[in-house]
Amino acid sequence: MRYDGRKPLQLRPIHIETDYLKHPEGSVLISVGDTKVICTASIEDRVPPFMRGEGKGWIAAEYSMLPRATEQRNIREAAKGKISGRTMEIQRLIGRALRAVVNLEAIGERTVWIDCDVIQADGGTRTASITGAYIAMTQALEKLSRQKKLSAFPIKDLLAATSVGVLKNKEVVVDLNYVEDSAAQVDMNVVMTGNGEFVELQGTGEEASFSYSQLQELLHAAQEGIAELFELQKAALGEELTAKIEGAKKG
Amino acid sequence: MRYDGRKPLQLRPIHIETDYLKHPEGSVLISVGDTKVICTASIEDRVPPFMRGEGKGWIAAEYSMLPRATEQRNIREAAKGKISGRTMEIQRLIGRALRAVVNLEAIGERTVWIDCDVIQADGGTRTASITGAYIAMTQALEKLSRQKKLSAFPIKDLLAATSVGVLKNKEVVVDLNYVEDSAAQVDMNVVMTGNGEFVELQGTGEEASFSYSQLQELLHAAQEGIAELFELQKAALGEELTAKIEGAKKG
Amino acid sequence: MRYDGRKPLQLRPIHIETDYLKHPEGSVLISVGDTKVICTASIEDRVPPFMRGEGKGWIAAEYSMLPRATEQRNIREAAKGKISGRTMEIQRLIGRALRAVVNLEAIGERTVWIDCDVIQADGGTRTASITGAYIAMTQALEKLSRQKKLSAFPIKDLLAATSVGVLKNKEVVVDLNYVEDSAAQVDMNVVMTGNGEFVELQGTGEEASFSYSQLQELLHAAQEGIAELFELQKAALGEELTAKIEGAKKG
Amino acid sequence: MRYDGRKPLQLRPIHIETDYLKHPEGSVLISVGDTKVICTASIEDRVPPFMRGEGKGWIAAEYSMLPRATEQRNIREAAKGKISGRTMEIQRLIGRALRAVVNLEAIGERTVWIDCDVIQADGGTRTASITGAYIAMTQALEKLSRQKKLSAFPIKDLLAATSVGVLKNKEVVVDLNYVEDSAAQVDMNVVMTGNGEFVELQGTGEEASFSYSQLQELLHAAQEGIAELFELQKAALGEELTAKIEGAKKG
Amino acid sequence: MRYDGRKPLQLRPIHIETDYLKHPEGSVLISVGDTKVICTASIEDRVPPFMRGEGKGWIAAEYSMLPRATEQRNIREAAKGKISGRTMEIQRLIGRALRAVVNLEAIGERTVWIDCDVIQADGGTRTASITGAYIAMTQALEKLSRQKKLSAFPIKDLLAATSVGVLKNKEVVVDLNYVEDSAAQVDMNVVMTGNGEFVELQGTGEEASFSYSQLQELLHAAQEGIAELFELQKAALGEELTAKIEGAKKG
Amino acid sequence: MRYDGRKPLQLRPIHIETDYLKHPEGSVLISVGDTKVICTASIEDRVPPFMRGEGKGWIAAEYSMLPRATEQRNIREAAKGKISGRTMEIQRLIGRALRAVVNLEAIGERTVWIDCDVIQADGGTRTASITGAYIAMTQALEKLSRQKKLSAFPIKDLLAATSVGVLKNKEVVVDLNYVEDSAAQVDMNVVMTGNGEFVELQGTGEEASFSYSQLQELLHAAQEGIAELFELQKAALGEELTAKIEGAKKG
Repeated sequence: MRYDGRKPLQLRPIHIETDYLKHPEGSVLISVGDTKVICTASIEDRVPPFMRGEGKGWIAAEYSMLPRATEQRNIREAAKGKISGRTMEIQRLIGRALRAVVNLEAIGERTVWIDCDVIQADGGTRTASITGAYIAMTQALEKLSRQKKLSAFPIKDLLAATSVGVLKNKEVVVDLNYVEDSAAQVDMNVVMTGNGEFVELQGTGEEASFSYSQLQELLHAAQEGIAELFELQKAALGEELTAKIEGAKKG
Repeated sequence: MRYDGRKPLQLRPIHIETDYLKHPEGSVLISVGDTKVICTASIEDRVPPFMRGEGKGWIAAEYSMLPRATEQRNIREAAKGKISGRTMEIQRLIGRALRAVVNLEAIGERTVWIDCDVIQADGGTRTASITGAYIAMTQALEKLSRQKKLSAFPIKDLLAATSVGVLKNKEVVVDLNYVEDSAAQVDMNVVMTGNGEFVELQGTGEEASFSYSQLQELLHAAQEGIAELFELQKAALGEELTAKIEGAKKG
Repeated sequence: MRYDGRKPLQLRPIHIETDYLKHPEGSVLISVGDTKVICTASIEDRVPPFMRGEGKGWIAAEYSMLPRATEQRNIREAAKGKISGRTMEIQRLIGRALRAVVNLEAIGERTVWIDCDVIQADGGTRTASITGAYIAMTQALEKLSRQKKLSAFPIKDLLAATSVGVLKNKEVVVDLNYVEDSAAQVDMNVVMTGNGEFVELQGTGEEASFSYSQLQELLHAAQEGIAELFELQKAALGEELTAKIEGAKKG
Repeated sequence: MRYDGRKPLQLRPIHIETDYLKHPEGSVLISVGDTKVICTASIEDRVPPFMRGEGKGWIAAEYSMLPRATEQRNIREAAKGKISGRTMEIQRLIGRALRAVVNLEAIGERTVWIDCDVIQADGGTRTASITGAYIAMTQALEKLSRQKKLSAFPIKDLLAATSVGVLKNKEVVVDLNYVEDSAAQVDMNVVMTGNGEFVELQGTGEEASFSYSQLQELLHAAQEGIAELFELQKAALGEELTAKIEGAKKG
Repeated sequence: MRYDGRKPLQLRPIHIETDYLKHPEGSVLISVGDTKVICTASIEDRVPPFMRGEGKGWIAAEYSMLPRATEQRNIREAAKGKISGRTMEIQRLIGRALRAVVNLEAIGERTVWIDCDVIQADGGTRTASITGAYIAMTQALEKLSRQKKLSAFPIKDLLAATSVGVLKNKEVVVDLNYVEDSAAQVDMNVVMTGNGEFVELQGTGEEASFSYSQLQELLHAAQEGIAELFELQKAALGEELTAKIEGAKKG
Repeated sequence: MRYDGRKPLQLRPIHIETDYLKHPEGSVLISVGDTKVICTASIEDRVPPFMRGEGKGWIAAEYSMLPRATEQRNIREAAKGKISGRTMEIQRLIGRALRAVVNLEAIGERTVWIDCDVIQADGGTRTASITGAYIAMTQALEKLSRQKKLSAFPIKDLLAATSVGVLKNKEVVVDLNYVEDSAAQVDMNVVMTGNGEFVELQGTGEEASFSYSQLQELLHAAQEGIAELFELQKAALGEELTAKIEGAKKG
């Protein structure tokens, strides 16, 4: 039994509220336990300078926390005048992960801006961001698709993420909350596609290392957890859109 | 009749959800029509360098918008590496307004950090921030007070704010939404205390000017609107805390 | 009697020296008591990006203090690498106020850059800046007008500003110097046009509030003071240019 | 056969020159094929603010490229005034990896600053940096140890890193050069300790994903490559120091 | 005959107005032809961190131009958020030059802040700044000395600066104005002490070079010009203070 | 005899390694005693905005030190987010000096980027940078010339630099190392062309001054030292390229 009463391979309660905001093309409020993230997707009709003229689109992600998303108040990055290494690492991860399941040619010279703003943090904010942002992005692109602006439906597969880790007592667990995460010996973020393949694998020994057999156990735990997330994503996307993604995947 | 069906002196529907977040000492989600702001209050056990050793506290406010709070996505100030003049002006206003009803000696050498994060914008974000932040701040200071950490109950009066303006058709209206605000000839933000006095008055002719009699009409409209806001604030604070504030006001 | 021997509604001695510098299209050294500001107006033949193609002009203002304009030396904003909230607020105010009396269509796609550099500060630097910058701007635009570059004479009215306040002893005074300003309970900056209307009204209770009747008294004091400033501006502009402005106002 | 004539699991030629510079406590020039990195280790007698008073040391890493380390000249980060996300990610990785094999208690309240400056880049700069920095750090700490300043020999194990990837033709290869890296479908950086455990695993599908069996093949390739790197590190460190590390590992 | 009617070795008309501003300990408005610089000296009762505890003082200089000091308006360095290389070079030069004639031990752990703000520029702003700042600094330190705060009178000698150059027609001239400076082949700034020695010599061929005999001619011209500046400085300082400096020089 | 056994007018041992790096058009590792600088030259096919359309080229220089080039580790300028005054001064000097011997018309609208990265510092880094960068630049432009891209061979003469100084014991010496430089009373950097003329002369009394006769002695010492540097440069450039430069000089 874990700190909060969960079994080792049990996720926290997850809620996904779609169309959470009025202005964005796609928007989601995702809660994973006490971690709450507003994910929005915005369509811009041009790409960054380094991609102009290639006829392809781009997915760019930004991530931020409200100052009081955490136990202690954090100084705003805007007030400091620069973005921390942690934030940069996370927003690069989110963008890269999402691009793996999007047909960038199909969206033309457009940028999908993904904004993940953590309003309450309790561990796993980056994986919750990916899981939620996938839905916001998919809904935004679906709108473009329905407006006949795209050459093809651009989503190639489902995509979700969770964390796994090795606790001090050597137990392998899934979906670590803040207390578990702070004390874990090994921390791994896993992003997978609906067809069971890996998109990102970031495993870190925290002043520690991990063996090959521990790695296998961690990956197994992640696969189980992410399979559950796919079901929740399908429910949030609805049958029709899920079918479209399944179709794109096969075709 | 106004653009959205309201009468000239009618506020938009207002909702105040207290204890909105888990970590902050005080937190509120305030909705004024489609404008939604998360207001939090955090207690820090020291004051800024310029106030050290004076035995008084400080109220500091920060304000920000999510990139997609607006119709068009805004570039994050953290990404630009600097805070805009508009943001600075608003956060200085919020802090100054709140300080007018706080007994800074009573809170000792502490800073109350106010964070107002607009998650959806439709005009009046600065006045909604003040109205909501007042409640978050009051609840945070009430907690300190109940913990016997303060020399006296530090809230001297109620405080709320609204906008008033002169539309193109010369009509004076209260609580302008974004469409009205963009086209108004005169725009005025008014912050008042529970005893009917002014704390801040910021009136601006937008490439226009206004007469003394228009000013009188604007102030009358603001007074009426703010009186309604005080009722909503009292309901959110609850009877006991309201009574404490009324007591402090008299005493 | 006030601290420096003035009556409550008496301005400090005011001097306006036009054509103060060699290079700018318009330049003024304005002294209001010991407050001294160099105001210049520069014409640039293009507008900021957000206004391109609209066929209108723009007035942009910047404000700064020499490090030793004040009793204590201030660190330069260039050395800090960022502009303070106070500076931003003031330069936004100056630009907005001046734009209220300029026919932006008449100046075409040009920017008038207003620079207000305080070389000595003793309270009221923002209102002295507005009063002086109005003259520098008017002279710069008059030159353009005489060169037949404008579709019409673009100045719609006179414009001047002063401060009013409520002192600790409840007395309402005009044109506060630094000592008075630091101790005032209420501080209000008022910008008015030659026809007696308001352009900006910024009243602030400093950890205090003010009543409706105090407000009326403050506005009355401001009107009297600004009427005197208009006479000084007319003298500085000369009869011919004053007549042109009066003509534009009527027409 | 690969692009440059290597077999899939063959590393590029590697040279490690120790004591490369005069001033630093430890310094190495490491060449991995045409990738050349100067790694230095500097001892500072204090720790960052967040660690003060804990009686432990810290390893902090910084990474940079000369502007013309690459085919196209890069703008210096100092000239841009900010560090890119890529650089932050790499320097966080280097520091975290090194900390996994250091007994931070044993080094006391000191910081070991690791600087990795790439003077020529041809793929694999971050893994070359880790492999080289380990030697520079170890030599610097060995000096402290010989000066009797440490409570124990602080290096717990060997540490080295390499990259592995899946090429377009599905072949799994080790130690990708720039041309291979740019075209790879999967790119993975692996950091391991001398006892065969993982410290960091960062695998990324570049607009692609990878299966569990591909992952196993990648990890196998990394293990083989890193085993060779350990032999080169031992040669560079010399017998005595290698023996000390082996001793610490057992003990 | 030169462009503006001067002879090759003739300075422009020079005016020095002392006690120009109310707040600073020393302040001067110096005009060299159309170049006008406000120089102030401020005393701070501490030294920069790198000098603490050495029992010596420091002279720090800052330099800036008003945006419209020049023919074309310059963007403020505060608005750009950074100081240009040219500004840094000039302020380092001013500080270094002044320190050469100050007994830093005698002023104790104090910083003299020198601010040189160019309000109108027509060539030679850095040399006018040095010549004017010397007077402001001397007057500020004289005040401290009269207050018995210094262990000795700290000014060791007079100090002044001028520019010399080689024009396109090979003529050597002194005190170049902007038009001459822009077209000169060689440009040299010379700072000298009252005893005829050099403190700074900065000669630059502008896409050109200069011979040893040209250098001799340039230095001769500078010596003559600076001798005149010393007479003007003495007049500005007054007999008593001049005598004190002459005394310190001998002693 | 000097500190390190040299005679007053003796340079330290100098080594110049050309084609040091793979990617740049020109690259040199220059060692002057223990001072080691990597100098590279990169060709960009456009000029900075202020030079566009003039049909001329530009030479731009950047200078940096590795953090541990020095005895104490320096904080990276990229980490601080801004470039120091010293760095700016040096990179402006390097660029200006090199431009004096280049026919900018001949290189067309191209920029030659010079990067001088000090990997080990022991005094004289700026003069070593100029001496080394001249060779890297010349080799890069020679490549362009051989590719028939230039209208004429653009190098007009040789160019080298050294430092001279007056030590505490009044001795005049050449090529000061760090220990000498730190204690010198006068420090002068001299840049000369192959025909014996000066390009830059920057002499500074460090809280001291120097006489005309000392200046003459310093210049004589610099001339002797630079004559030796020219021989080393010719050896590094090779006979053919040297002959080309000599030809350009005469023609």
